[in-house]
Parts: sequence; C-alpha cells; structure tokens
Amino acid sequence: MNILDIIAKKRDKKELTKQEIDYFINGYTKGEIPDYQAAAFVMAIYLNGMTIEETTHFTLAMANSGDILDLSDLGIVVDKHSTGGVGDKITLILMPIMAALGVPVAKMSGRGLGFTGGTADKLEAIPGYATNLSIEQFKANVKEIGISLITQTGNLAPADKKLYALRDTINCTNSIPLIASSIMSKKIAAGASKIVLDVTCGNGAFMKTKEEAETLAFLMKQIGTLAGKETICIITSMEEPLGYSIGNILEVIEAIEALQGKMKEDVKEVVFSLGSYILKLAGKGDSIEENKKKIEECIASNLAYEKFLQLVEKQGGDVSYCKNIEKWGKANYEIPILTQEEGYIQQIQAEQIGKASCLLGAGRIQKEDSIDLQAGIILHHKVGEYVKQNEKIATLYTNRKETLEEAKKIVKEAMTITNLPVKKQNMILEII
Amino acid sequence: MNILDIIAKKRDKKELTKQEIDYFINGYTKGEIPDYQAAAFVMAIYLNGMTIEETTHFTLAMANSGDILDLSDLGIVVDKHSTGGVGDKITLILMPIMAALGVPVAKMSGRGLGFTGGTADKLEAIPGYATNLSIEQFKANVKEIGISLITQTGNLAPADKKLYALRDTINCTNSIPLIASSIMSKKIAAGASKIVLDVTCGNGAFMKTKEEAETLAFLMKQIGTLAGKETICIITSMEEPLGYSIGNILEVIEAIEALQGKMKEDVKEVVFSLGSYILKLAGKGDSIEENKKKIEECIASNLAYEKFLQLVEKQGGDVSYCKNIEKWGKANYEIPILTQEEGYIQQIQAEQIGKASCLLGAGRIQKEDSIDLQAGIILHHKVGEYVKQNEKIATLYTNRKETLEEAKKIVKEAMTITNLPVKKQNMILEII
Repeated sequence: MNILDIIAKKRDKKELTKQEIDYFINGYTKGEIPDYQAAAFVMAIYLNGMTIEETTHFTLAMANSGDILDLSDLGIVVDKHSTGGVGDKITLILMPIMAALGVPVAKMSGRGLGFTGGTADKLEAIPGYATNLSIEQFKANVKEIGISLITQTGNLAPADKKLYALRDTINCTNSIPLIASSIMSKKIAAGASKIVLDVTCGNGAFMKTKEEAETLAFLMKQIGTLAGKETICIITSMEEPLGYSIGNILEVIEAIEALQGKMKEDVKEVVFSLGSYILKLAGKGDSIEENKKKIEECIASNLAYEKFLQLVEKQGGDVSYCKNIEKWGKANYEIPILTQEEGYIQQIQAEQIGKASCLLGAGRIQKEDSIDLQAGIILHHKVGEYVKQNEKIATLYTNRKETLEEAKKIVKEAMTITNLPVKKQNMILEII
Repeated sequence: MNILDIIAKKRDKKELTKQEIDYFINGYTKGEIPDYQAAAFVMAIYLNGMTIEETTHFTLAMANSGDILDLSDLGIVVDKHSTGGVGDKITLILMPIMAALGVPVAKMSGRGLGFTGGTADKLEAIPGYATNLSIEQFKANVKEIGISLITQTGNLAPADKKLYALRDTINCTNSIPLIASSIMSKKIAAGASKIVLDVTCGNGAFMKTKEEAETLAFLMKQIGTLAGKETICIITSMEEPLGYSIGNILEVIEAIEALQGKMKEDVKEVVFSLGSYILKLAGKGDSIEENKKKIEECIASNLAYEKFLQLVEKQGGDVSYCKNIEKWGKANYEIPILTQEEGYIQQIQAEQIGKASCLLGAGRIQKEDSIDLQAGIILHHKVGEYVKQNEKIATLYTNRKETLEEAKKIVKEAMTITNLPVKKQNMILEII
C-alpha cells in the first residue's frame, strides 16, 4: 500500500477500503505523509466525494488517531453539537437544564471562527470561568454537580485537528463527508454514549439549503449508527440570528435571562426540541411532549438557573456577574440602527449580521485574532414583527471605531422590510 | 487576489483569468505559495480541466518564469519534441539529417523516466559526449556545424520543473492541459521559432487512445499559435516499440545504422514524415513528397551520417565507437527469447517491453536511479512478421541477474502470435 495509489484511487472516483483510509490517517497524523500529498488527496475527496462506508472509516480512523475519553462511569452521556450559527447560545441554556433534569453533562465546545460564534468563547466571557480543566477535574465536576462545560482538550482526534487546519488553507472546508467525519470523530473521541446533533440550515449556517442539511444529517446519523453511538439529528432554521443577541457577553446575558424564564420564541423552540430528544436518549422519558413539559417545569422552578450558577461557580467563574448583569458594563460605542420605512420585517440575514458582529470585534476572521467580549449586536425586533419608520431595530456595540461604518452598512443591508405580513418559519425543520 | 480564491475558482470549475494564473505561477516559483496549496490546486485542475485560453496562459506563465533563450541569430530554428515512447530514437536519426539539409538544429532533450527513454541518456551512451554544454557553447556549435544536441540547461521554465516534480508526487502527471503546458512552456523557453511535435499514441505512449492524442495535439497546436510559434503535430502509433532496439547503447547503434541507410520501416515512416514537415516549416520546400526525396538523398549520399559524426566529435564524443560498434561490447547476460508456437506476430506491447527493459537496467523507475547503458532488448521480429516455433524473437541484455526472470516473463507476455495474417498499422495516424 502506498499514498500514490490511494490518491490515484480517489482521483479516479473509486471507493477506498478501510485499510487505505487507516493508512492515510495514520501516516498523515505521524507526519509520514506530507501536507502536499494530503492536500491533493483532500481536494480529490472534495470533488469526488466519499461513500457512507468510506466516511465512517475516515471518521473512526480520525477518532482513533489520539485518545478516546472513557466517560462510562458517568452513566449515559448524551453529547450535543451544533453545526454552527449566528447568535447560537443554545448550549449555555440547554445543558444546565439537562443537568438539572438528571442527565450527566460532560461537554467540550469549540471556539468561534468566521461569522459563527463558539461556546468556549462565550463561557470565557464570565470573569474567572476556566474552560481548560484537566480531564480528571472535568469528570470529577460531572460526578459532583452533574455538569461540566470545557473547551476541547487533551490529545483527542489529532488527525482531525491537522486535517481541519489543512482544509482551511486549501479552501476545502465545505465538503459534506469531511464536515461529517470531523464532527463525528470529535464526538466519538470525546466519549459520548449517544449524540444529538443540531444541524443548522440557511443563510447563517454552513449548509445553505435543506437538501444539504439533510444529506449531512443522514450521513452523521449513519456514521453514529455504524460506530455504535445512537444519534439523532435535528435540522433547525438559521435564516435570521437565533434569539436577540450576537456577541459573547451579550449572549451570556441572553442565556441567563432565558434560564430565568425569559426566552425568545425561536430559542425556546430549539432548546425544547433538542432537550426532549436528549432526555429520550438518556432514558429519561420516551414522550417528546412529556419531556417538553419537564423542561418547562425545570425552568419555572428555577432549578435550571441554579444549576447554571453552580456550574459557573464550580469552574471558577464570578457568579456575581450572572446575578447582576449590569456589572459587565457596556462597550464604548453603542450605535442604534433605525428603520428606513415602516412595515413587516421580511428578513434579517444571519450571515451578514455575523460578519458585522465580527467586524465589531465579537468574532475572529483569522484563528489567531483576539476577540472583544463586549462587542456585538442586539436585535430589537425579529422577522415577522411590525416596525414603524425611524424605530430602533438593532444596536451595535463595539470598542473599535475603525470598522463601525462598514458594520453599520452591512447590518442595514442585511435587513429588509415589506408592507405585506410575513409568515414566521418553524425553527424545527426535520428530525432525522 | 489571493491563492484561496484562485483554488476555490478552479475547485468550482470556473475559468481562471490570465492575472490569476500569473499570480499562481509567480507565487509558486518564488516559493511564496507552498506546495500544499499548489497540490490542491493541481488536483482541482486535474479533475476540472482547463480551457484552451487557461492552458495557454498557464504555458506562457511557466515559459516566462525563467530565462527565454534567444536563438534568433541562428535563423529559423524548428524544434522537435516527442511525447515519449519505447525505442524512440528518432531525434538521433532525424536531427543530423535536418542539419545536413541546412536546417539549424539547436535542441535540448530530456532524460528517461518510467517505461520511456530519453534522448539525453542515449547521447551519453557515446563515451565522452557532453550533453551539458553552456548556452554559449551550444549556440556556437550550431553556428559552426549547424547542430547541437544537449540536455535541458539553464534557468528555463523553472515553474515547470517545480510543478512537474510536484505532479509526480501527487499522481497528477496524466492531465492533458498540464502535459500540454509543460511541453510547450519548455519549447517556448528554449527559443524555438517553430515546433514539430510527435504526439505518440497507443500502448507504449502516455496517450493510450487516438482521441486523447488528438485532444493533446489540438491543444498544443493552439497554444503554439496563440504564442506566435507555428506548430505542427504528427500523431504516430506507439503500439509496438519503435525500430528493433530498446536501451541506450542499443538504440545509438540502431540510429547509426539508420543513418547509414539501414532503417526499419516504422522508424523510416516517422523520420521521413517529421523531417518533411520540419523542412517545410524551415522554409526548405513546401512539398512533403519532394522533402521526403531530399531526406532519402541526404541519407544515401552519407551526408547525414557524416553530420552525426561531426556532432559527436564536436561535443567531445569518441567517434571510434560510432565507426566500430563492436567497441561498445555486450552486457554480461544475453538471453534469447524463443517463440512458443508458429504464426504471425499479433502484438508486441510497447509498455510491457519498456517496463522489462527498465528492469534490465536500461531505464529509471525513480528519478534518482542510475542506468546501465548496455542493458536493453533487441527485437528480431516486428508485428505482422511470420515466425516458426522456437525461433529467436527477442534478446535481452543485462548486467543484473536478479530481475532477469521477471523481465523474461514480462517480455513473453507482451508478445502474442496468431495463425491469421496481421495487417500492419500505419505509423502516421494524423497530421494536425
């Protein structure tokens, strides 16, 4: 077996065997296969695809390229992952609810890149919150209080890290089999027993159409099944930003308010749907409707909010910020965006809002960029709502003056108003 | 402009502009674009192709990446190139004839790799013959005796050298636009005024079918036209090896005999056809039939052979070997291959014979391999000839005992015999 034959096979659109895929992943992880051969191979995969079997072998080879976390002593750990979006603070709200309902939560989250945010950055917006716990501490916390949220740590799926970075430099990120295997390899290495995937779909997601999202969802479900990890995919709409805030501190505040019971309708739909399926997979109840009621009660009883405070405290965070959100202070510049005309909001393009928020300092364009935790955007209205002329529709927050005008322009262009009523789309598009 | 957008464009099968292609070639030549980005880009070209315009820009960018030889003071220099074959000693025979007929011959040749041989290696089979003259000496020789044959030298088309090596390591050699631009960039950089291309086609060539050969030929002709270099392509058959010998010294001997008038029919067809078109392009006569007669006379008068001896002497070669071919001696092992049955020879697969010859030591499998100048194969019969059982059909020559059995097996399998008469194919398939 040699890498030239393996490249030629994929170049000629033939199916690779498990042995050939293992050979590539092992060789590349060890540095025996150079980047240029991997780059040609990845481009061939991008253009010629992989079958479900190939993608599963690829996923398992990447998962096995480093350590596999053993969480079996914690019970049924149901991992949750979102394929990314704008204003997506679901993990911050959902996981404390799950923990309060008795599901062990041991979750690692990533950082934001480009127009999408990352949960690890949002957690770090809470002063003192440590996302970089050791695996031992991580597990100990779950045992003690039922929840720990940290950033990716340890030597998990190093092949994925290397390949993900390579894909970025050769413009091959947007390949469904490569996205599926990247996500699933990390979930498998992170020791999940079962997996619930939020597959975002629309303007502010990587999957722009429902067809693409379905393809990705089916693929990940099948990989999960073949890997012995029960997997449910929920396709959710990501046309406008989720909730009303975009930016790290702003989203933590929205999450706290949500856990206190003030939840925007779109956030609620996603939290309740994902949560009900997690409860089902965790063996906490087969009825989705019943599970939704449990979540409702959990929030109403304040147990979810208390679990969140407990989590923050346990990880070294200063809970006084959570209890008094004014403590966070505001960015130096606070710029209202007014409507040009009256009517119904037709769209608030999530990708554009995400990009504007990045320009304001809330996100990274390059991996090395630092982020401004105070920066971001608040939406005062959502799609379908009626607004008057000169009404405040959004507010931009930033400490950077230089990119403000560009961000304002993008935000204005991202929003359209019509004089006909606009039907709100369901957030949950499909359960797979 | 940036390399990520350029990769994405070709990945998405869009047409690149001249500026984008120049950006890539310049950046890659200077080392500003790393191998892994170039590798992904080359794979995208391999799979998604390039238009004629793109291929022309690519060719010119590679030609302009280094020095461009100025041969304008030598008159109309018609360069000749073959896309490679087995037993292809045409340059050794044809170019002295052309020089004897007054066409200035200033030609650089490559080395053999894989199952095909290279003219530079064959020239070096003549003791003392220097293939590595300086450009000044090269031109001075052409001015003085009308001919110089050397190996590729100087900083000509460095982008092509770098890309060719990269293509080899990522299994992307066999791409028609990349082959066309590689050949044409070298010819343009080498200062040719006009170009005659021998596009080989069949079992022992890189282009296996006439359709592929035609595509390559049309493309190269169009690049030549767009680059202002009149170009003629002659598609020749490469099903069985050309002539009767394969291997470096063996082919030099066949070339000497051919120049003395003893030319195998297939070699003659190719030499006369290519030669007539070179004479035409060089302004030495528009009638192909007349030109063929001139070649016939040139050989009969011994002028071509004398020109060859003059060339060898001028480049430091020992002409006594050419005058007395016994001086070369023979390899340690000389193994006859006998026919298993009587009948007509149906095929002698050139690629297999080339591979066997490589195993005997006549060629390189890896670029770094050394070659054994004495090694090779003599064919005692050609396709279409009638042979008895146990008749000597071929002889293998080698100094390596270890690969002899494998080579014998390959040679035997490369030949088939039938009891029905076999029609010999024309060597010249098409003039483009």
